[in-house]
Amino acid sequence: MSYINVNENLPGIRSLMAFSPATATPMGKLANLLLRSDEGLSMADRELIAAHVSYLYDCFYCQQSHGAIAVCYLNGEDELVERVIMDYTNADIPDKLKALLAIAGSVQKGGRYVTSEQIEQAKTLGATDKDIHDTVLIAAAFCMFNRYVDGLAANTPADLSTYRLRAKQIAERGYGNYIFSSKQPVHEDTEFEL
Amino acid sequence: MSYINVNENLPGIRSLMAFSPATATPMGKLANLLLRSDEGLSMADRELIAAHVSYLYDCFYCQQSHGAIAVCYLNGEDELVERVIMDYTNADIPDKLKALLAIAGSVQKGGRYVTSEQIEQAKTLGATDKDIHDTVLIAAAFCMFNRYVDGLAANTPADLSTYRLRAKQIAERGYGNYIFSSKQPVHEDTEFEL
Repeated sequence: MSYINVNENLPGIRSLMAFSPATATPMGKLANLLLRSDEGLSMADRELIAAHVSYLYDCFYCQQSHGAIAVCYLNGEDELVERVIMDYTNADIPDKLKALLAIAGSVQKGGRYVTSEQIEQAKTLGATDKDIHDTVLIAAAFCMFNRYVDGLAANTPADLSTYRLRAKQIAERGYGNYIFSSKQPVHEDTEFEL
Repeated sequence: MSYINVNENLPGIRSLMAFSPATATPMGKLANLLLRSDEGLSMADRELIAAHVSYLYDCFYCQQSHGAIAVCYLNGEDELVERVIMDYTNADIPDKLKALLAIAGSVQKGGRYVTSEQIEQAKTLGATDKDIHDTVLIAAAFCMFNRYVDGLAANTPADLSTYRLRAKQIAERGYGNYIFSSKQPVHEDTEFEL
């Protein structure tokens, strides 16, 4: 049971966003801007960073949600996604993404853990300023989303199929109001309303 | 020097928001919704929660910025604000606010540190579900803002008068584009643009 009176039929962050639609709107827009872009980092890269940070924090809901979306973008490569989330240094991914995941892991502990050596390494491997900016902000934003979910003890489904179903919807249509509603948006660019 | 190529004449988060105006817009709107409301918690309460969380994280820029804004709302009570930020259990503030600051401190460490006893204590002292929601989300949001600032090594002014000047502007007119621009907005509800 959540610490506040939310609709317990909605899982995780969606129950909190339904409780507070006003704050849900900019949070959903931020999620869309950070995760639904292929400018620089791919959408798969972005979801992997989000899922890895949530794994380090041990937020089951966010880790499962964003891992499942990454699987959709990577054509069902669920073993690769699990490896990246839990042990990326030994995963079959580009070194540039490994360098960015290292930065994201530091941000999760605290921004000051990011070192100039980590930044130089990422730049040497081809990361642009925008790639580094987006990596840090995705990691920082998930430090917010993770805490929002478990700081209010939001309901977290244990059934993994729930995450896969929602992931498919988000991969196809973006976050929009899918993040906190069970209704279909009229258009992809619909406001973040219930 | 910041890790990415930003305008070093802008301090802290404002340099990052100028680098990425698209993400700055929802972040600024979220800050305004969470900090510029007197519904339930006062604007002073909200800034004190933000400043206390930033103190626990040791983000000098955010702690100074939001402490200075709280001082504006509390008619210059700078000693009280400093006490609340650093040692709230011994500050002359209502027990309800102390209970909410305890929850915020737990969120800063990690959402799972929030206990049902802390929630019950806050409710017994008159906190509503909205008060608790807003406390958790303010604390969680500052876990993002703090990490955004120091994860990218944003420039942080050491001169305290800088914070007081900006605080006065924000206290009078809200965040709007003040959060990341030195220009005056035409209206308080202007979009978060440079």
